Amino acid sequence: MTRGTGAQGAARRRILSFIRDNGEASRGEIARAFAMDKKAVSVAVETLRAEGLLAVSGLRESRAGRRSESLSLNGGHAAALGIDLGATHVIGVLADLAGTVLDRASYEIRPGLPVDLILTQMKTIASRLLSARREPVVRAAGVCVPGFIQPEEGISLVAENINGWRDVHIREVFQLELGIPVQAEDSSRSFAAAERWLGQARGAADFIAVDIGYGIGMGMYCGGVLQRGGSWKSGEIGHTVMDPEGLPCACGGRGCLETIASGRAIARQAAEGIRAGRSTLLRDLTKGIPEAVTAQDVGIAASMLDGYAISLLVDAGSAVGLALANASAILNPSVVVLGGGLVSSGRVFVDAVKDAVRRHLMPGIGQDMRILVSRLGADGPARGMALMALEGILEGTRSAAAGTRTSVSTSDGG
Amino acid sequence: MTRGTGAQGAARRRILSFIRDNGEASRGEIARAFAMDKKAVSVAVETLRAEGLLAVSGLRESRAGRRSESLSLNGGHAAALGIDLGATHVIGVLADLAGTVLDRASYEIRPGLPVDLILTQMKTIASRLLSARREPVVRAAGVCVPGFIQPEEGISLVAENINGWRDVHIREVFQLELGIPVQAEDSSRSFAAAERWLGQARGAADFIAVDIGYGIGMGMYCGGVLQRGGSWKSGEIGHTVMDPEGLPCACGGRGCLETIASGRAIARQAAEGIRAGRSTLLRDLTKGIPEAVTAQDVGIAASMLDGYAISLLVDAGSAVGLALANASAILNPSVVVLGGGLVSSGRVFVDAVKDAVRRHLMPGIGQDMRILVSRLGADGPARGMALMALEGILEGTRSAAAGTRTSVSTSDGG
Repeated sequence: MTRGTGAQGAARRRILSFIRDNGEASRGEIARAFAMDKKAVSVAVETLRAEGLLAVSGLRESRAGRRSESLSLNGGHAAALGIDLGATHVIGVLADLAGTVLDRASYEIRPGLPVDLILTQMKTIASRLLSARREPVVRAAGVCVPGFIQPEEGISLVAENINGWRDVHIREVFQLELGIPVQAEDSSRSFAAAERWLGQARGAADFIAVDIGYGIGMGMYCGGVLQRGGSWKSGEIGHTVMDPEGLPCACGGRGCLETIASGRAIARQAAEGIRAGRSTLLRDLTKGIPEAVTAQDVGIAASMLDGYAISLLVDAGSAVGLALANASAILNPSVVVLGGGLVSSGRVFVDAVKDAVRRHLMPGIGQDMRILVSRLGADGPARGMALMALEGILEGTRSAAAGTRTSVSTSDGG
Repeated sequence: MTRGTGAQGAARRRILSFIRDNGEASRGEIARAFAMDKKAVSVAVETLRAEGLLAVSGLRESRAGRRSESLSLNGGHAAALGIDLGATHVIGVLADLAGTVLDRASYEIRPGLPVDLILTQMKTIASRLLSARREPVVRAAGVCVPGFIQPEEGISLVAENINGWRDVHIREVFQLELGIPVQAEDSSRSFAAAERWLGQARGAADFIAVDIGYGIGMGMYCGGVLQRGGSWKSGEIGHTVMDPEGLPCACGGRGCLETIASGRAIARQAAEGIRAGRSTLLRDLTKGIPEAVTAQDVGIAASMLDGYAISLLVDAGSAVGLALANASAILNPSVVVLGGGLVSSGRVFVDAVKDAVRRHLMPGIGQDMRILVSRLGADGPARGMALMALEGILEGTRSAAAGTRTSVSTSDGG
């Protein structure tokens, strides 16, 4: 019970987090960062090297001309599986302790697919990735889903954009299937974790990561800590109300950001435009079937300078920018990372987001904030999930499901 | 340098924070809360009692029928001064380590008073409170101001609602005057700290406290930690944009919440109504001088069932409620505390806030959240500030300005 609560546990966590957040670090840098005794740092580092968690990744010349060893996490020590269930895809990633992707697999899914079919596809991907590789040992897995999570029990309570997805006992189902500890998380949070450890938010203690795809979600770090809110439901920027008189939303509200600016909303608006006889390339791209149009088609049409498609993306980006300006006035992040399908659709959308933030955010806060586009591609949430699943190993707990119950028994599920 | 970073420092901080957050606690409760060894808890508690930080406040019967001592912070160990500068007041409070108010003093000020006159009034209050009492020793002071702060240097960068208030070197000025360590903070954050330690947010790890007066500010705790953002500018809910086409705001933006729902905005709207010949008691309350009307007058008229005054408060409350619903969708707080002049004006405003939150917030998040009215009155920010100034003593640092440089030299100021 008291493991990790003493001085050694605290030093261990600090050192490993510091190295992960910075990619690599020397003993001297660690000592300076935490005002620790150099001797104590060396002792702790030797223990972590003996356990196989740290490796020397190179030599650096210090200012005084002395050489010091750069320490990194030892990828070969352990691997974990991250599975990301989105509204339109299942992505599985096998990553090692250092965050390197060892293998990946994905399926496209249709919105509306039955829940048990989706679960079967997720299990298939997981099993395939697990069986394809023997080294390093896969010690844990994580599954992320867009929506409310009960992380202590590993239950996905609801994923609004997946029909019929309610109270899915992720931990129970996948521990039984895979035989390793499994945790569940909201996919916007695992996306934020990936940006913090591998992406655009490296070194940022206060940042937000927004995932704009079929739906819109947000993960946030405040004071260097991933936040989950009072009942694990934080980050619902997609359900901030932009227009109290607006369209009804799937959440039961009205005029939420998702009704205006999500991939789903843009596809709906495009279909309406085609039906109303707007002159647009989208008509040709979808062979005249309005229902077939997707947000991706809108991105393609916009890249071909189609005026109507551009206007749809500008309006959506402006709405996202206003919501982000308001979130930033409250949170004062140093970095905002934009990710998800709409962001990769091209510059029109991202430029509209940036313009709206500039217009609506207090200059004193805006001047201290950078808006960056994710470079992790569609795999961000799955990679972040794999690394979150490995947290327990870094923390020195026996199993890998950090901050959650770690029994592999399935008898306590529902 | 390493004081407080070892195991003993960590245990010490945990125990003192736990007792402060809960008012009192037994050794057994502390041991259970942190999975600590009972012996280790007893040793740490004895040290803290010997230092005079903890006192036995009573005896409790445990479930097993055994008696255990309740431990509290020992108020008599130290006191601190908290000075709160608002747009319309200066409030000074002398509080002991347990948060008990020993003395207070206040001035009303007019918006538009010159900065040096305001500083003189603040110093007068501080000196009066310091000289009136010898026990317990006043070890530190804190000054809170609504606006951006540079806490490391103790500089108040700007207070929008106070004309000409820019780059005021709070620490330098008051350390010179008082001869004790001084820190500066945004007053919405010290209000939040007061609610966490003494008020409606006791025991809540994730909550927001909104101060609705002449301006509108917000303090927030996420994961049990007071947040300041990436550049100490978090909490600007008053400058979230409610209407992109709305009125210009003092911040340079347009349609901010403060242009619609602050005390200043309500007074402006009331004056416009009187000028436009609206039938309202406000006309009599202000003897027909529209410029003389205040938000307080509107509250009084509303309590006399004046329809126009009520409509102003309902509109303002609805706007605050929408902004709070959006902040809550992002932060998922378990408690929202409402404070400030408008809140104490009566139920009309508060009911409108609650109605709007219910209307606009996702039910899944709203069901886990309570909206409570502060009971600390106007002294909340000053009391919180006094306790924040005492943080350093609880943390075991030599002086009391936690997290800030603590030199009393004034040569490094500007």
